[in-house]
Amino acid sequence: MVDVSTKSETLRQAVARGVVRMKPQTLRLIKANRIAKGDVLAVAQVAGVNAAKRTDELIPMAHTLPLTGVQIDFALDEKAGTVGIQATASTVARTGVEMEALVAVTAAALAVYDMCKAVDRAMTIERVRLVSKTGGRSGPYRRRGES
Amino acid sequence: MVDVSTKSETLRQAVARGVVRMKPQTLRLIKANRIAKGDVLAVAQVAGVNAAKRTDELIPMAHTLPLTGVQIDFALDEKAGTVGIQATASTVARTGVEMEALVAVTAAALAVYDMCKAVDRAMTIERVRLVSKTGGRSGPYRRRGES
Amino acid sequence: MVDVSTKSETLRQAVARGVVRMKPQTLRLIKANRIAKGDVLAVAQVAGVNAAKRTDELIPMAHTLPLTGVQIDFALDEKAGTVGIQATASTVARTGVEMEALVAVTAAALAVYDMCKAVDRAMTIERVRLVSKTGGRSGPYRRRGES
Amino acid sequence: MVDVSTKSETLRQAVARGVVRMKPQTLRLIKANRIAKGDVLAVAQVAGVNAAKRTDELIPMAHTLPLTGVQIDFALDEKAGTVGIQATASTVARTGVEMEALVAVTAAALAVYDMCKAVDRAMTIERVRLVSKTGGRSGPYRRRGES
Amino acid sequence: MVDVSTKSETLRQAVARGVVRMKPQTLRLIKANRIAKGDVLAVAQVAGVNAAKRTDELIPMAHTLPLTGVQIDFALDEKAGTVGIQATASTVARTGVEMEALVAVTAAALAVYDMCKAVDRAMTIERVRLVSKTGGRSGPYRRRGES
Amino acid sequence: MVDVSTKSETLRQAVARGVVRMKPQTLRLIKANRIAKGDVLAVAQVAGVNAAKRTDELIPMAHTLPLTGVQIDFALDEKAGTVGIQATASTVARTGVEMEALVAVTAAALAVYDMCKAVDRAMTIERVRLVSKTGGRSGPYRRRGES
Repeated sequence: MVDVSTKSETLRQAVARGVVRMKPQTLRLIKANRIAKGDVLAVAQVAGVNAAKRTDELIPMAHTLPLTGVQIDFALDEKAGTVGIQATASTVARTGVEMEALVAVTAAALAVYDMCKAVDRAMTIERVRLVSKTGGRSGPYRRRGES
Repeated sequence: MVDVSTKSETLRQAVARGVVRMKPQTLRLIKANRIAKGDVLAVAQVAGVNAAKRTDELIPMAHTLPLTGVQIDFALDEKAGTVGIQATASTVARTGVEMEALVAVTAAALAVYDMCKAVDRAMTIERVRLVSKTGGRSGPYRRRGES
Repeated sequence: MVDVSTKSETLRQAVARGVVRMKPQTLRLIKANRIAKGDVLAVAQVAGVNAAKRTDELIPMAHTLPLTGVQIDFALDEKAGTVGIQATASTVARTGVEMEALVAVTAAALAVYDMCKAVDRAMTIERVRLVSKTGGRSGPYRRRGES
Repeated sequence: MVDVSTKSETLRQAVARGVVRMKPQTLRLIKANRIAKGDVLAVAQVAGVNAAKRTDELIPMAHTLPLTGVQIDFALDEKAGTVGIQATASTVARTGVEMEALVAVTAAALAVYDMCKAVDRAMTIERVRLVSKTGGRSGPYRRRGES
Repeated sequence: MVDVSTKSETLRQAVARGVVRMKPQTLRLIKANRIAKGDVLAVAQVAGVNAAKRTDELIPMAHTLPLTGVQIDFALDEKAGTVGIQATASTVARTGVEMEALVAVTAAALAVYDMCKAVDRAMTIERVRLVSKTGGRSGPYRRRGES
Repeated sequence: MVDVSTKSETLRQAVARGVVRMKPQTLRLIKANRIAKGDVLAVAQVAGVNAAKRTDELIPMAHTLPLTGVQIDFALDEKAGTVGIQATASTVARTGVEMEALVAVTAAALAVYDMCKAVDRAMTIERVRLVSKTGGRSGPYRRRGES
C-alpha cells in the first residue's frame, strides 16, 4: 500500500457514474415500486453508501479513509431502459476518494440487479467510470465530455 | 430477505463476465507486470475471491452462502485495450450464486482500476453481466449469444 | 463457543420484538416520510437484515449461521408515539436463531434513532425481547402474554 | 450520508445507558461467575467495545469515526434483577459519537442475553437511551433527570 | 479458491498450538489479573473465537465455513515465562478447519501481546503449528511428538 | 479501550518480523511459483496488507487507525528452509501501530501456510516480534540485537 504519510490532509471529492441497462418493463416496475423484493432504489442507495464505507476491505491496496460524505443519485430513463447511478464521495484525508465513489456506484448497481433479477436476468452494468475528482497534489480531473 | 428455508440444498453454479477498458499502453504495462503498485492480476484475483465471499455484506437482500469454489480468469486483448474478467462461483445451498459471481467480477475490475489509476484515470468498467447459471428450481440459464 | 457438531440440522425460527419510543411529532414525520436524512423505515429494514446476517461478528459466542430468511415488520402507533419492530429469522442449522432475531430488532431500532436523532434526541429503545422460537432439541418457546 | 466535510474536528463524547432485566436467580449466577458459557461481563464488555468500533457498518447512514476511547461499565442491582450498562465513547472528529455509545450498550446487552439465554429466555433489554453528549456545533446535551 | 463442491460434508476437527514468550514478571501480572488494560486471558479468548469465525476474511483462499465449535485453552508456565495457547475448531463441512484453529491461536496470541505491551514490548509469538486434524478425505494427521 | 483523546496526532511507524519454517522442498516450490493453489507470496502480501487494515476488528482493545502505509517484504532462505516476513506500518494518529505491523506479519504467515499446507502440514510460524517503533510519547523502541 503506497505510503501517504507525508501528504497533507485536504478536502477531496470524487464523482463516479455508471448505468444499469434493463428491459423497459423492468424499469417501469422499479418506478412504480412494484418489484416484489422491496423498494429497489432505497435498498440500492443504502448498498452504495455502505459499500463506499468499506472500500478498504474490498480493494486490497486502498487506504482506510473516514468518509465525510457519500451521496447516491439515480436517474431513470424509461426510453433507454436504464437506471443511471451517480455517487459523490468526500473526505478530508491524505489520499483521494476515487475508489470510494466507484465502489458506491458498482454496489448500488449490483443491488439493483439483485432486487430485479427474478424478473430480468439479462440486465447489464455499463460504463462505470470516474467523472471528476478534486483535491490532492495531482490537481483536479474531469473526464472529457462529461458535465 | 426472501425465505428459502423450504428450498433444497443443491449444487449451484454461476458464471459472470465483465471488461475493463483502458489505453493500450496501460494494458501493455499490466502484461509486462510493470505497474508500480504491484502485480495487477494477482491482486485483482484476490480482490474478486474475497469480495465474492462477502457478497452477503455488500448486497443487502443477499443470503449468506458457504461458497464451495470461486475462480477468476482474465483475458487480455491488446488490440481492443481490454482486460476481460470471468468469475465462476459454486455452492451447495438453498439459493443461487449469481450475485457472488457478479460481485467477484466487479471487485476484480475495481481492483484493476485501483492498481492502474495513477497511469490511466479514464478506464471504464463495461458489460458486467450474468453469463450462465445452473442448479435450483428455476432451471439453467444461459445468456443469449455467449458461449 | 459451545460445540454443536452433534446436533442435527433442522429448520429453526425465532421472532423478536422491540419498540422505539419517541415524540408524537417525530412519529408523524416518519409516517409522512419527511425526515431529512431519508426514508426511515426503508433504511431501518436494511439495517436490521444486514445486522442479522452479521450476528456472529457482534455476539462473541454466537455461531455462524446461514440465515434462510429475515423479515422485519414495523407497526407505528401514533397515539403511543412508538415504532414497534418485529424481526423473524429462519435457518436450517444446528443451533437456533434467537440472537439473529434480537440483533435485527436492535439494529433496526438503532437505525430509526440515527435517522431521527436530529429532531428527537430523547428517543428510547424499549422492551427488546424474544417472542417465540421453534425447532431444536429444547422445543418451542413462546413468551407468556404475547401472540 | 450527511456531508460533514466543513465541520471542524473537535473532541466529542457521548454517554448511553440501558438495562438488561432478568430473573434474580440469573443475576446471582452472573455475579458468582457461574454461567456455564463463560464470564458474562468480560464477554459483554468486549462485545460492546468491538461493536462500537463497527458502528458505521451497522448503522447505514453513520460516518466512519476513529474512536479514541470506549468504556463499558456495569452496575448489577440484585433486588431489581437488572444489569445496568453504561457506555462512554470519545473521538476527535467532525461528527458525534452518540450512535457509537448506543451501539456499545445494545451489543453488550445482547451479549449478556446470549451468555445467559440457556437459563433465562425471558430477559428483556430496556430503556436504551442517550444520556449526554458534548462537543460539536449543536452544543452539549444532557437527558433530563439523569446524572 | 479450490472447488470442494463434490467433497462430502463430514465432521472435521483441528487442533493448533502456539506460545507467547514473555518476562516472568509479565506472566505473574497476567496470573494475578493485574494488567491495567483488563483481564488478559478473557480478552484473548474472545479474540481467538472471533477471529476463527472470520478466517475466510483473513486468509484469501480459505473457504467460508460454519464453525460448530471453537475452544481456546491457556496454559501458563511461570518458570518458562510462557502462555501456551491451544485452539480446537470443529465443523461439519466440505473442507477442513486447520486454518480456523491456526487463526484462533494467533489472534489470541496477538491479543495477549496487545494487552501486555505497555509493560513488555519484547514478547514473542513462537511455534504456532497444527497439532492434529481429523475428518476429510486425506485422513487424520497428528504432528510428530505432540500429544 | 484506553482513552487517547488528548494524545497528539503524530507520525508513527512500527516494524515487525516473523518466520515461516518449512521443508526445503516446500520453499523451492514457492520460489519456483509451482504451488498449485497460486502465487504464494503475492497472496500472502495481500493477506498481510488487508489484515493490517482490520487490526481493530481482530484485537479487541485496539483503536481504529487510518493506516497511511503498509509494506510487506519477504526473505527466502533456502538453506534454513524459512520465509522471513517483515511488515512496516505507518500512520498519523494518536496511538501507535505495533499491533498493525504484528497482525500483518501473522496474517501473511498464515496465508503462506494456507497456500502450501497441501504439501507441508508441519510448517511452523516462529519468532513473531516487534522490531522497532517510532513516534509517540513513549519514544522510539528498537529490539535488542535487530538491525
